[in-house]
Amino acid sequence: MITTDIIIIGAGPTGLFAVFEAGLLKLKCHLIDALPQPGGQCSEIYPKKPIYDIPAYPEILAGDLTDKLMEQCKQFQPGFTLGERAETIDKQEDGSFVVTTNKGTQHKAPVVAIASGLGSFEPRKPLIDNIASFEGKGVEYMIKEPELYRDKNVVIAGGGDSALDWSIFLADVAKSVTLVHRRNEFRGHLDSVEKVQELKNLGKINLITPAEVTAIYGDERLEAVEIAKKDEEAIRMETDHFIPLFGLSPKLGPIANWGLEIEKNAIKVNNALDYQTNIPGIFAIGDGNIYPGKLKLILCGFHEATLMCQAAYQIINPGKRYVLKYTTVSGVDGFDGTRKEAPKAVVKAIQ
Amino acid sequence: MITTDIIIIGAGPTGLFAVFEAGLLKLKCHLIDALPQPGGQCSEIYPKKPIYDIPAYPEILAGDLTDKLMEQCKQFQPGFTLGERAETIDKQEDGSFVVTTNKGTQHKAPVVAIASGLGSFEPRKPLIDNIASFEGKGVEYMIKEPELYRDKNVVIAGGGDSALDWSIFLADVAKSVTLVHRRNEFRGHLDSVEKVQELKNLGKINLITPAEVTAIYGDERLEAVEIAKKDEEAIRMETDHFIPLFGLSPKLGPIANWGLEIEKNAIKVNNALDYQTNIPGIFAIGDGNIYPGKLKLILCGFHEATLMCQAAYQIINPGKRYVLKYTTVSGVDGFDGTRKEAPKAVVKAIQ
Repeated sequence: MITTDIIIIGAGPTGLFAVFEAGLLKLKCHLIDALPQPGGQCSEIYPKKPIYDIPAYPEILAGDLTDKLMEQCKQFQPGFTLGERAETIDKQEDGSFVVTTNKGTQHKAPVVAIASGLGSFEPRKPLIDNIASFEGKGVEYMIKEPELYRDKNVVIAGGGDSALDWSIFLADVAKSVTLVHRRNEFRGHLDSVEKVQELKNLGKINLITPAEVTAIYGDERLEAVEIAKKDEEAIRMETDHFIPLFGLSPKLGPIANWGLEIEKNAIKVNNALDYQTNIPGIFAIGDGNIYPGKLKLILCGFHEATLMCQAAYQIINPGKRYVLKYTTVSGVDGFDGTRKEAPKAVVKAIQ
Repeated sequence: MITTDIIIIGAGPTGLFAVFEAGLLKLKCHLIDALPQPGGQCSEIYPKKPIYDIPAYPEILAGDLTDKLMEQCKQFQPGFTLGERAETIDKQEDGSFVVTTNKGTQHKAPVVAIASGLGSFEPRKPLIDNIASFEGKGVEYMIKEPELYRDKNVVIAGGGDSALDWSIFLADVAKSVTLVHRRNEFRGHLDSVEKVQELKNLGKINLITPAEVTAIYGDERLEAVEIAKKDEEAIRMETDHFIPLFGLSPKLGPIANWGLEIEKNAIKVNNALDYQTNIPGIFAIGDGNIYPGKLKLILCGFHEATLMCQAAYQIINPGKRYVLKYTTVSGVDGFDGTRKEAPKAVVKAIQ
């Protein structure tokens, strides 16, 4: 059982900044995210896209935003449970909560902050009857550990940036890479499309278009896929892995069953006071909450995370008075022993 | 008469970010600030101090924060009335407001956003009877235009960073610089104290300590000051300028008489909906407002500015429906004709 002060569900920008604000109040956080890395949408969906409305950043790539937030909070040593989806929540007799993931990892804390954005990102799956029985046995919808594919035969399906980028990356890792797409046209960054063209010309990527994977075979594990090229007879290809990369779609998922008030697919919170839900001790911050005037903007999530931490402090330290300190004045003490502070003024005589 | 969509009172971080958010909604802003430059406290009081709790900036100097915000909003071409204090507000028959400064400059707009932080910064003045009659005639409490002092004799009083830094700067500009302080010890950055010591040794700054300016003389304009050194007879010194730099203290000032509900020296706003005050069309954002759960943090001002702009849009475009667009998706169109946008994905066949 992992124990902490605040369990944060969702490691996107809002969740990561909550770690920093909690740290200023000497509260520890542990984040749970269904994606294999922190950053939420910013890292998974559009890491190379610029955002223009992060305050004081005239322009920042979404991936860089994640990096900066990770750097800002790292001194407060957050814990991470990644690649697992928060599944159930149970209130304990002592008032704390236990959150359990789909893989059974358990987390316990007096406060839970749901920063899950539009929901947990679930992969869109191809319509192949028996595909569920091969999941984790050769069929993967996300690449968590590229080394898994070293010297293996890999079939990737899809026509967007993920399919292009992973085909390029695995061309140097895997024994063979076959990219299957139902059209000849790919939609992605020009660089990526051109690079795949080049690797195809070099024989390092085996391209089959327009085509679809229509069946998968295997005994214990995946052994082969059937690839149907338009107007041609389907072929059978031996492979160790089949990775359909058809995009992710966000789903509120199991959180919908936690007894929280839901409105317009978002979690209702009290107005801007501290973003607490109808269940005391459970807060919702960022794109996944709703209140009058709500805007789904990252900068609003930062504000909500900050106010939430104040309320969490009161729950964790009942009756203790908290006095707001400015980082410019008081500095920042990391849980790792580091200290940041403004250079002090000196008092010195001039002779 | 200056006309605009939103008059923003206070050009600190919150006011500057409001310009950007208003610009995304195609609303123009004009800022009024008592200080001679934008940035509020960040530029005036602690430009060289690091702030650690601006989201995604593990560390940023307050002066750099101002620069980044200016850069972010410049495409929306804000107007500035600087070095003037907003004095009166008058509601017009057409529902708009006219804000007049202490120097008589008039501004008209349908929406007013007060982003005045802790108030307008008023200089602490020395207790010299007739000093008021020399203000602007040789006595200045802030340096707005350093060129004013070229080849002039200048007496500066004070013992902090402002007095040190301006003495250093003017040593190269003025004919003579005399620095008067009531103690031998100065309080400031080590660099600044050492530099003044060096300039004193070189004879480029005339240092008189421990001493005070006790009287000022002149006919139309300032002609001389009386400097009393401890346990010595006072001396009379001819000078063109006397600049007491005893710090600034924030005062809510004339805004207190605008009919706004005030609580704990701050302006009451409706809860987090849009930060509107008791007077429709007047909003208060940033450190100068109060509502349940309020935290006086820059990042909260950013959020408040953003929600305020949505409400301003409704006032300025009654009945028009606004659909939130993400900058990553829609790009940013400046009023100066510039456009920023994410590189588009291409759709391209691989042969």
